[in-house]
Amino acid sequence: MTFEFDRATAVTETDRTEDGARFLAELDAGWGVGPALNGGYLMATAARALRHTVPELPDPIAFSAYFLSAGAAGKAEVSTRVIRRGGTSANLAVDLVQDGATRITALASYGDLSSLPTGVQTTAQPPRLPSVDECLSTKLASAEMRKVATIMDRMDLRLDPAYAGWAVGAPSGEGVIQGWIRLPDGREPDALSLLWMLDALPPVTFDLGLPGWAPTLELSAHIRAVPAPGWLAIRHATRNVAGGMFEEDCELWDSAGRLVAQSRQLARLPR
Amino acid sequence: MTFEFDRATAVTETDRTEDGARFLAELDAGWGVGPALNGGYLMATAARALRHTVPELPDPIAFSAYFLSAGAAGKAEVSTRVIRRGGTSANLAVDLVQDGATRITALASYGDLSSLPTGVQTTAQPPRLPSVDECLSTKLASAEMRKVATIMDRMDLRLDPAYAGWAVGAPSGEGVIQGWIRLPDGREPDALSLLWMLDALPPVTFDLGLPGWAPTLELSAHIRAVPAPGWLAIRHATRNVAGGMFEEDCELWDSAGRLVAQSRQLARLPR
Repeated sequence: MTFEFDRATAVTETDRTEDGARFLAELDAGWGVGPALNGGYLMATAARALRHTVPELPDPIAFSAYFLSAGAAGKAEVSTRVIRRGGTSANLAVDLVQDGATRITALASYGDLSSLPTGVQTTAQPPRLPSVDECLSTKLASAEMRKVATIMDRMDLRLDPAYAGWAVGAPSGEGVIQGWIRLPDGREPDALSLLWMLDALPPVTFDLGLPGWAPTLELSAHIRAVPAPGWLAIRHATRNVAGGMFEEDCELWDSAGRLVAQSRQLARLPR
Repeated sequence: MTFEFDRATAVTETDRTEDGARFLAELDAGWGVGPALNGGYLMATAARALRHTVPELPDPIAFSAYFLSAGAAGKAEVSTRVIRRGGTSANLAVDLVQDGATRITALASYGDLSSLPTGVQTTAQPPRLPSVDECLSTKLASAEMRKVATIMDRMDLRLDPAYAGWAVGAPSGEGVIQGWIRLPDGREPDALSLLWMLDALPPVTFDLGLPGWAPTLELSAHIRAVPAPGWLAIRHATRNVAGGMFEEDCELWDSAGRLVAQSRQLARLPR
C-alpha cells in the first residue's frame, strides 16, 4: 500500500471460518507514546481486520474498545468474530493479542457509510479555530519529545495556541486541546483513519497541568459520515475529572463542515 | 429482594467455571417500551450477572452494550466471561440471550466505586431544572401511553415542562429531555440502577418532533461515583442527527450535586 497509515495497520489473513477470521499484524514502533503504542493505532489495526472480515460492510459505525495491556512494536494476532450479520450492518467482536496477552478487546457495528441517508440536522458547533497557518505545528516540538512520542511524526497536527500552553508549562486549565489534523503523506481520511485520529491527540489532561501518560480504560467511537478530503478540525475536552479518572470527548469535523466522528473515552489520571 | 428494580433484574446462577458463569433471568413485561423491553433494563440485568461473577468488584465503571435484537418478557440466559481480573478492576464480557437469539452483547470494566479517590474537578454544569414540584409527573400520562410504555410505571419521573411539549404535540425542537428521576418504592440509587436510568427516558427525538421507537445500536456508560440517596437530575440531548442516526448523551447528577453517570448512545431515527 502506498500510504504510511495503511502500511502500519495492514493485516494478513491466516485463517477464516464461518464465524470469523484470524490475522497477523506487524505493529510499528513509529506509533508509540512513551512506553506503549498509541491506543488509536491498535484500534485502527483491529478495525482493519474487521473490515477484511465483512468486506461488503467496510466501515466501523460504532466501535467500543477496552484496553487491557499496553501494546508493543512487533507481531500481533488479531482474531475477529461475526456475532450477527444483516443486510446493511454487522455486529462484530475483535481481540488484538501479543504473546498471549490481550491488548484490546472490542465490539463493533459495521456498515457502509456511503449508503446512509445524507440528511443532517447537526446542532453541535464546530470548534472555533484560528487558521491552519496560525496554529502551532507539532513539528516545532523538541527532538526529545518526538523521541518519546514517535506518533507525533505520523500526523500533520496544528494546535490552537490558546490550548497549547502546556507545551511551555502554561496550561490553560480548561481541559481542552484542539486544532487541525491530517495524515502527512496525502492519504485522505476514511472511517479507519478517523477512528485512529479520535485517539491521536495528547491527553487532554496536559491542558489541566497534569502531564504524563493517561491510560485509557475504554473508548467508544461513532463514525457518522464519509469524510471529505482535506484538513479535519479536531477538538477534545474533559468535563468530569473524578474518582481518579476523566472522560475525554473528541470530535472530528471534515472540510465540508460536517461532524463526521465522535468519541468518548474513560481514562485514568496520570500518576 | 424487597425492591421492584432488584426483583426484576434478579439472576440465578446455573453454572460457574474459572472463566465465567451462566445465569437465568425472568424478564418482566412491566419494563416494556412498545413491542420491546427497554434496553437499559436488559443492560441492568446483564450488569447484575457480571456483579455476581466478580462480587469483590461489584460496580460497572464502564459498560458498552450492543443491541442485536429486541428483548421480550420471559426467560433469558445470561453468560459472563472474565477477560482479565486485576486487584482493583476486571474486564468482563456478557451476553443476554433468549431462545437462541442474542439480545445484547456487552463489554465492561468492573471495580469498587467506594474505593476510588474522592477528588473532583468537574467543570460540567448540572442541568438547570425547575423544582421537582414544578416539573411534570409522568403519572399524568394517558392510560393508553402507559400501556404502550409500561416502563413509565417503574420510575418516578418529573419532566422539565420546557422540554415536555412533545407530549402535547409541541416539541421544543432542541433535542433535549430533562427532569428528575428516582425509583418509586424508596430503593436508593446504586451503580446498577444508574446504568438503567441512563436509558430510561423517552428518546430525545421526541423533542425533535420525531415520535416512535428509536432502536439503539450501541450504548456506552461510565459510572463515576457512588450516588447519594434521593432524587437524581437527568438530562439527555442530541447534537448530531445525521446518516439516519443520532447520538444521545445522558447525564445523571446526584442529590449531592455530583455528575455520577454519563452515557452516549447511537440510535436509529424513528421510521
